Amino acid sequence: MLPAVEEALKAAVQPAAGAGQQELHDMLAYHLGWVGEGAGPKATGKRIRPTLLLLTTSAAGGDWKTALPAAAAVELLHNFSLIHDDIQDNSEHRRGRKTLWAIHGVAKAINAGDAMFALAHISMEGLESVLTPKAFIQTSRLLPRTSLQLTQGQHLDLAYENQPGLNMDDYWPMVWGKTAMLIRACAQMGALVARAGERDLRAYMLFGEKLGLAYQVHDDLLGIWGDEEQTGKSIYSDLLSGKKSLPVLYALQQNGEFAKRWNNGSVQPGEVAEFAHLLEADGGREYASDQASKLTGEAIDALGAAEPEKTAGSALTELAEELGRREV
Amino acid sequence: MLPAVEEALKAAVQPAAGAGQQELHDMLAYHLGWVGEGAGPKATGKRIRPTLLLLTTSAAGGDWKTALPAAAAVELLHNFSLIHDDIQDNSEHRRGRKTLWAIHGVAKAINAGDAMFALAHISMEGLESVLTPKAFIQTSRLLPRTSLQLTQGQHLDLAYENQPGLNMDDYWPMVWGKTAMLIRACAQMGALVARAGERDLRAYMLFGEKLGLAYQVHDDLLGIWGDEEQTGKSIYSDLLSGKKSLPVLYALQQNGEFAKRWNNGSVQPGEVAEFAHLLEADGGREYASDQASKLTGEAIDALGAAEPEKTAGSALTELAEELGRREV
Repeated sequence: MLPAVEEALKAAVQPAAGAGQQELHDMLAYHLGWVGEGAGPKATGKRIRPTLLLLTTSAAGGDWKTALPAAAAVELLHNFSLIHDDIQDNSEHRRGRKTLWAIHGVAKAINAGDAMFALAHISMEGLESVLTPKAFIQTSRLLPRTSLQLTQGQHLDLAYENQPGLNMDDYWPMVWGKTAMLIRACAQMGALVARAGERDLRAYMLFGEKLGLAYQVHDDLLGIWGDEEQTGKSIYSDLLSGKKSLPVLYALQQNGEFAKRWNNGSVQPGEVAEFAHLLEADGGREYASDQASKLTGEAIDALGAAEPEKTAGSALTELAEELGRREV
Repeated sequence: MLPAVEEALKAAVQPAAGAGQQELHDMLAYHLGWVGEGAGPKATGKRIRPTLLLLTTSAAGGDWKTALPAAAAVELLHNFSLIHDDIQDNSEHRRGRKTLWAIHGVAKAINAGDAMFALAHISMEGLESVLTPKAFIQTSRLLPRTSLQLTQGQHLDLAYENQPGLNMDDYWPMVWGKTAMLIRACAQMGALVARAGERDLRAYMLFGEKLGLAYQVHDDLLGIWGDEEQTGKSIYSDLLSGKKSLPVLYALQQNGEFAKRWNNGSVQPGEVAEFAHLLEADGGREYASDQASKLTGEAIDALGAAEPEKTAGSALTELAEELGRREV
């Protein structure tokens, strides 16, 4: 599937090319990992969202090839948000390469993100020939709705940075919008393209939502205890940046040694290992691991309820296990 | 029409509200001129794009009320681009008020712009009940296409800032994307909602395109010689910022005294009046005025070819005269 995804993505980015638009197109191609320094499979990322979407189409009895325009759309939407995230977080590197704004400046990078946002919506037009007008309208309206949810989750994430007194109740609305809704939309679109019935559609949506939540919790764990080789970020990096991740919010709620130290001011590089130790001692790591595992289990149960086609269903189960439950 | 436009805009922004999302919604409401310091008619802007769209629906024989979701969409799209423009241009004020990023920081403002972009697309859903599925699909695909063109024009505008040796051939592709395509889309959507025939649709599109170009040229003139009261910017401001406007590009091509001075380095506040004088002496002002007048005339001719309904047609002609040909 992956070569077909890259091909669909390239076609979806093509409308940005045109007389005098070489630089804009090159910026998008660089961000997507195709050109420039460090281009290649490591730079493209894993294309998890389009893979999930296409596997869901197969699982629901459809032809995954017909879902390629939607697969390209969700990956472009994800990457639009990454381009803007990197500016918002002041991140100069992603996947071992310089970020778009670090090369071209903030102004052009904001605009390139906007172009990718527009291209995501344009890509959906490719579904028109494979769906009835009604189904096409139903499917394509998912993209702007999901985009809005992304920005709502992102707003909370940004607002939390300087907000004291947060607890775990604040965590779920944020990751729901920031991560889970796009993953759910992938499963939903995949099922819609396969013309799944209402019951299966609901099951696939629940699968996507739970998987998205598990994925974010898992990502929180990786951001603290992940392997540098694997994550491309230094160990403990999310502790240094003060991110309100699930392990941190859990431990803060325990009001123990970790909370006392954390509330005393920002974590310094020399003490970050000690903070990680306190966080673990106060149960933050175990709690988050349990949550990721529980959510992944719920995702796999929901998938089972949809009675997926065998091969694609196994691949989806495997993907879910990998995204949500893998040992850190 | 204007109260109905405000009502439609408020409804279109509503999906951004929700538990924990008060600040994001407030940011959008502030930018649209409804709340916060300086809120009121001066802060909302003139709502030119929705007015143009609704008048076109009436002119083409439709009921303008049915076009309100599209009218809200084009205004949201325009305002999304303003939010991001202000960040890109480092502008701290717009219409006499602080810009969104100047209050909430760049990160949240980028995200609020993205939310407004998503809301523009969501607003289009409101046309579904007034159009056939086929016409609805045809109309709603205009929004992402126009968004892409906006980013293409904006990219050129940003790239031109530090690009020497530009001439008038470089001007038109930039303003075509940055301004004319959205104005054309307004006329096009207005006509599509009225189910105009192919010939009239083409005429309204040409009207919008020419009007958009005239509007940008006129705006270039205002940016240099405009009345401070009217523009909210200081006189000569676009000369100080080094903007590659049509008067400047024309005068540079004449290779006279203005070009010699301009190519010598950036314009200092003490010499800006002299630069404006040289620019006028080398014909930049007259050339741009002639172009704005010519394009406005072509717009009005195209409108005539569409044989618009009488009252709405007169209002569109008046709007065109005001936007493109008014004396600076």
